[in-house]
Amino acid sequence: MDQQYAAYSLITCEIDRSILVITLNRPDKLNAYTGAMGSEIEDAFRKADADDDIRAIIVTGAGRAFCAGADVSGGASSFDTSGTHGAGVFGNRLAGSGTRSGSGFVDAIFRCRKPSIAAINGPAVGIGITMTLPMDVRIAVKGAKIGFIFARRGLVPEAGSAWFLPKLVGLPQALRWAISGRTFGAEEALSGGLVSETTEPADLLDRAKELALELTSETSAVSVALTRQMLWRFAGAPDPFELLTIDGPISRERGAHADVREGVASFLEKRSPTFPGKVSSDMPSQYPWWND
Amino acid sequence: MDQQYAAYSLITCEIDRSILVITLNRPDKLNAYTGAMGSEIEDAFRKADADDDIRAIIVTGAGRAFCAGADVSGGASSFDTSGTHGAGVFGNRLAGSGTRSGSGFVDAIFRCRKPSIAAINGPAVGIGITMTLPMDVRIAVKGAKIGFIFARRGLVPEAGSAWFLPKLVGLPQALRWAISGRTFGAEEALSGGLVSETTEPADLLDRAKELALELTSETSAVSVALTRQMLWRFAGAPDPFELLTIDGPISRERGAHADVREGVASFLEKRSPTFPGKVSSDMPSQYPWWND
Amino acid sequence: MDQQYAAYSLITCEIDRSILVITLNRPDKLNAYTGAMGSEIEDAFRKADADDDIRAIIVTGAGRAFCAGADVSGGASSFDTSGTHGAGVFGNRLAGSGTRSGSGFVDAIFRCRKPSIAAINGPAVGIGITMTLPMDVRIAVKGAKIGFIFARRGLVPEAGSAWFLPKLVGLPQALRWAISGRTFGAEEALSGGLVSETTEPADLLDRAKELALELTSETSAVSVALTRQMLWRFAGAPDPFELLTIDGPISRERGAHADVREGVASFLEKRSPTFPGKVSSDMPSQYPWWND
Repeated sequence: MDQQYAAYSLITCEIDRSILVITLNRPDKLNAYTGAMGSEIEDAFRKADADDDIRAIIVTGAGRAFCAGADVSGGASSFDTSGTHGAGVFGNRLAGSGTRSGSGFVDAIFRCRKPSIAAINGPAVGIGITMTLPMDVRIAVKGAKIGFIFARRGLVPEAGSAWFLPKLVGLPQALRWAISGRTFGAEEALSGGLVSETTEPADLLDRAKELALELTSETSAVSVALTRQMLWRFAGAPDPFELLTIDGPISRERGAHADVREGVASFLEKRSPTFPGKVSSDMPSQYPWWND
Repeated sequence: MDQQYAAYSLITCEIDRSILVITLNRPDKLNAYTGAMGSEIEDAFRKADADDDIRAIIVTGAGRAFCAGADVSGGASSFDTSGTHGAGVFGNRLAGSGTRSGSGFVDAIFRCRKPSIAAINGPAVGIGITMTLPMDVRIAVKGAKIGFIFARRGLVPEAGSAWFLPKLVGLPQALRWAISGRTFGAEEALSGGLVSETTEPADLLDRAKELALELTSETSAVSVALTRQMLWRFAGAPDPFELLTIDGPISRERGAHADVREGVASFLEKRSPTFPGKVSSDMPSQYPWWND
Repeated sequence: MDQQYAAYSLITCEIDRSILVITLNRPDKLNAYTGAMGSEIEDAFRKADADDDIRAIIVTGAGRAFCAGADVSGGASSFDTSGTHGAGVFGNRLAGSGTRSGSGFVDAIFRCRKPSIAAINGPAVGIGITMTLPMDVRIAVKGAKIGFIFARRGLVPEAGSAWFLPKLVGLPQALRWAISGRTFGAEEALSGGLVSETTEPADLLDRAKELALELTSETSAVSVALTRQMLWRFAGAPDPFELLTIDGPISRERGAHADVREGVASFLEKRSPTFPGKVSSDMPSQYPWWND
């Protein structure tokens, strides 16, 4: 495997075809989150973003949990950083939260030019579930327990989840789950739109990989990168007018690229396309269309 | 009962445990809305917002209707304020609508640090249904008639409902209901996502109270206040970046508060929490994060 | 028929009662889209917007397809405008995309003061489906194939669809369809919320007309125009506060209009209303409330 993904201690990485599988790897702690784990997730996403050999990313957990939330092995003062800068579960940065200028794993997942899929193999609680919200697809094993439990700990939804959750499941469902802090099962997550399907435990990772291939096997890497950013960045825009000044010019510039010639030729010839374009070198001049 | 809620003439208030129940009380007029009723609703919500003994608010109607809409007992000119400032159903303020600087019951419900639940006990039409949209949960009795009937009266959806309704039920459903002005039953309201459940009439208020307890009995009052404001105020944000500069610092400041120590300790000890924090005195320094 | 709708070559227009039916009319090409077709659609919508005799617009296709997407009869270089300004499928303007200042059929549909309904009679692919997104209702024949196939051609979703699609079907479903570029059937479009119902082919146009009448027969033309613009333009607003400064004043000004007197009188007299107000002359002073 590519050595750049081998240096982590709280996660492990594995590559299957063009899919990077990130496994949260503190099974004896139910993969409880720490700031150091967040940094490793961030680093893996940033490397995958730049790596043309990776087309999609799956995040799952080792053992029986996905992620039981922030590590509270420090007891009642686990979240208290007041006397000891850098200590506590937040580590030396905000738990899961970046800043406007772009640090943090939320930012890394959001900006990634490759789609990502959460394969929730067991309990996903607190930051264990909010970390999956910037991903494109979530699936879960039947019976997995999920909870936005912040209000039951005296905390608030973080990692940007007050923005992400209503975008994914609608505001009424988001309010119910986030205000009550109640834990619920994968079936309620499915009916509420938080996960798109549930599977038997033995099938979870295979199904996640099928979904990764659905998103990538017939598509241009550059198109996927642009599409993902266009949807995430304009879904919350006040109106379509700014987007209309961007999507037309990108379409025209792409129209002259070898990718589109291949896309149309393969369609007319009724065969699968082989797109030459790479994210590392073929993003159009309009990208990025935002200022950091 | 607390005397501060006793001085109204168009609504009545009752307190059950930590729940304030506001009842629209013009049963002989099907609880038809007037500007004076709007002012009383606003006043009750602002008092409850500041009252640490209140954790949630339920709004329901006396008699067989929830609210039949604006009072049109003035006949065809009921909405005409042109010659008589202060007259008409709008009273001396816009019906249900505030201004950017913050008047009106919509504003009071939106800003309230306590969650609110509409218990729709019968017909809810026009402002009778739009007044419920800034609330967090809506339930209705089976068979209740609901209608965004503005276009059938020559009017437009008001009380901010052109923003609230798509947020709650999605844009396609909002367009259908609001453009057609058609009246529909509670069952269609349920399948369209406007109410989260329907009940038998005898069960409505008990169920509303159960939901109020679901939102409040195991949660920190300060966390609920913050969570409610974060979701309502960032669900419509263009991207998660501004939120990420706020939710992390709030989490850190909360992490040092006695509420979080109690939240983690109670979790580790597998008991219900007893949070000491009060909305009147323990909101974090980041609150409010907006300018009025 | 009104001669102003008779001069098109790639679409045909027909008026039934107060409904303008626009039919994409290149049946031998499966109604493949060209820039010239886009200009004709735009022109018809702009005329209907100003025409008081038209209350709603239906768009459908001639023959067995709705619209098979951009015309790729130019082969692999169909989208390449680099060497030949004005050539290619984009014609002399961006395919379907306007600019902030307001050209293009997306803009014409979005601004139209009459509601529009897509009656999808067969395959709707690429711009064949994105052109329907600014419309208010979409219905499809059973079995119709639909696809946001851009990423499989090396292109990106355009015509503002990265804004429209999540607004209509939610972000998770929008991401799945747009990233994968997968073609799916009308049944999946129905369960995913892209179309509101499916019909037998023989019933499609009649049903579309029923829906047009549902939206218009009991409603004020001016109210419908305002309601449509309020929902589309504020559904994506960050909060309700700007809207609250607009919907109240519009309600007050409308309250003094003969439309509202007729709306209340007809309600009290339990008869259908006959609204005198016209879009051409009776829009309130607050309209438009935006700057172009």
